[in-house]
Amino acid sequence: MTSEYFIVLGIIGVAFFAISGALLGHEKNINGFGIVVVGVMTALGGGTLRDLLLGKPIFWVDSSEYLLATYSAIFVTVLFIRYFPSPSNFYFILIDTVGLAIFNVIGIEKALISGTGMIVALTMGMTTGIFGGLMRDVVCREVPYVMRGDVYASACFAGGLTYAALFALDIPYIWCILGSIGVTVLLRIASLHWGVNVDLFRKRTPRQQKKESSTE
Amino acid sequence: MTSEYFIVLGIIGVAFFAISGALLGHEKNINGFGIVVVGVMTALGGGTLRDLLLGKPIFWVDSSEYLLATYSAIFVTVLFIRYFPSPSNFYFILIDTVGLAIFNVIGIEKALISGTGMIVALTMGMTTGIFGGLMRDVVCREVPYVMRGDVYASACFAGGLTYAALFALDIPYIWCILGSIGVTVLLRIASLHWGVNVDLFRKRTPRQQKKESSTE
Amino acid sequence: MTSEYFIVLGIIGVAFFAISGALLGHEKNINGFGIVVVGVMTALGGGTLRDLLLGKPIFWVDSSEYLLATYSAIFVTVLFIRYFPSPSNFYFILIDTVGLAIFNVIGIEKALISGTGMIVALTMGMTTGIFGGLMRDVVCREVPYVMRGDVYASACFAGGLTYAALFALDIPYIWCILGSIGVTVLLRIASLHWGVNVDLFRKRTPRQQKKESSTE
Repeated sequence: MTSEYFIVLGIIGVAFFAISGALLGHEKNINGFGIVVVGVMTALGGGTLRDLLLGKPIFWVDSSEYLLATYSAIFVTVLFIRYFPSPSNFYFILIDTVGLAIFNVIGIEKALISGTGMIVALTMGMTTGIFGGLMRDVVCREVPYVMRGDVYASACFAGGLTYAALFALDIPYIWCILGSIGVTVLLRIASLHWGVNVDLFRKRTPRQQKKESSTE
Repeated sequence: MTSEYFIVLGIIGVAFFAISGALLGHEKNINGFGIVVVGVMTALGGGTLRDLLLGKPIFWVDSSEYLLATYSAIFVTVLFIRYFPSPSNFYFILIDTVGLAIFNVIGIEKALISGTGMIVALTMGMTTGIFGGLMRDVVCREVPYVMRGDVYASACFAGGLTYAALFALDIPYIWCILGSIGVTVLLRIASLHWGVNVDLFRKRTPRQQKKESSTE
Repeated sequence: MTSEYFIVLGIIGVAFFAISGALLGHEKNINGFGIVVVGVMTALGGGTLRDLLLGKPIFWVDSSEYLLATYSAIFVTVLFIRYFPSPSNFYFILIDTVGLAIFNVIGIEKALISGTGMIVALTMGMTTGIFGGLMRDVVCREVPYVMRGDVYASACFAGGLTYAALFALDIPYIWCILGSIGVTVLLRIASLHWGVNVDLFRKRTPRQQKKESSTE
């Protein structure tokens, strides 16, 4: 039963990330098949790293549904963008966040099943969630979202803690998943709309002029 | 017999990519051993990722011929550049494309031998071909070739389809390989010389001013 | 006994790289948990790649001490920076170099234990030492240290050769390690302070004007 959730969730997450990759590739005016490359990389990057780290067979090599979902999502996105005006940045971030939240949960769960401790599992969840988008941003020469001021890794981490807490309280499995995804998505959206910011590690040293130039 | 083709092809491909890495490193004015690092990364990156994904032992860890070929190619390139004027961009692209075409075929073949389906195999071929050059471009802070306007991933994909078609028609093995490599190289060179462009996914939305700045 | 050295050395190296990642992340004005992501990536990147390449279980998935050391080092660094003025660039480079030297030795040793030849082992050492810092620099959008003019990969390689030479001379194990680390650190620091430079591969072609713009 667990593994069925995995497959459905995984396919949804892969499709969301593929869309986000295709959207950013389009934004960056990448032609030809380059946009497919960005989409595939975003969709499969995080999960691939997770499976490599856990020593499991790579999920998309094992069964080709994930690749089909990825290619379909990219194709539909490209068609959509051709005939409709480009979606606003808010939708891009929403799609990116849902992918992040889903992969975070899958990463944690897969790590726990492999028998790792909770600290390794939380790290694995963040790795799975963040890595695909990070590759997308690096290859597209964007400042990675993880590195910007807004809540990103923190939302992911909070989602992971939610999962761990609900799991420890013996809540039914499906609610652990939905709770974790909900917390991640809400935190990130809230942070963008109401400017709620986690500034635990904000730079405080009085080098304002340096600060301005180095974040350019 | 198959595996002999592999080794020879693999060594040729590795050497071509090593040269392309050393050339770009030199172009970027990288001194010391940094140029060796770029060359090694370009030469071994794609095949390493392929072997990781397929769960096989890494090719250059298994037998050191690949490393010797890589280091020799870098060394010869560096010597050549010291005493002769720097080669034109055309040769750089030709060398890069031959490496791409060869690794594409090897990736497809290795995936098929591992028992994957054709869609996974084609993805694996593109991964193997593209990833080394992508790392080279990211580390050298170039816009990756995959992301530029010209035919790159499309040529790679066309080469893969050629291989699959010839393979399905029971053409002798050596012709599958040569046909696929030929299609990839010809498409890319043709696209550069006559401006043949695959614009399936060209951006059409009327945001010209944004477009100019975002591709900078 | 060997494996005890490994664990202690590994934890020290991981902590040093985590600090260097947190420092650069702070320098780049990354808020929230982004700084944790950079630190973790720097600390674990090189060793993770090494274990993947050698087909071993990933060191930080196996035992969570490494993760604890990483998180602690990042946390202490962040606290330190909040209340004290930011350390000078010299300390950053010193910390980075010690991490490089330690991971270089561990990479060589782990490869040799896996039964690879010396040329593969030296490459593996450089991979282990360089890759974490390279990811840090790419994600923070810095010119990677490997790509700059100063001695970096050369110092790493010299440390590897020292290790190989001492090993061949049957010197006690601990001196092989210390000798290799010492050579790497001294070479890099010396190169920075007295401008000693390894210019084996310096660009000589008379394209000065191109050179200026391409290194921008």
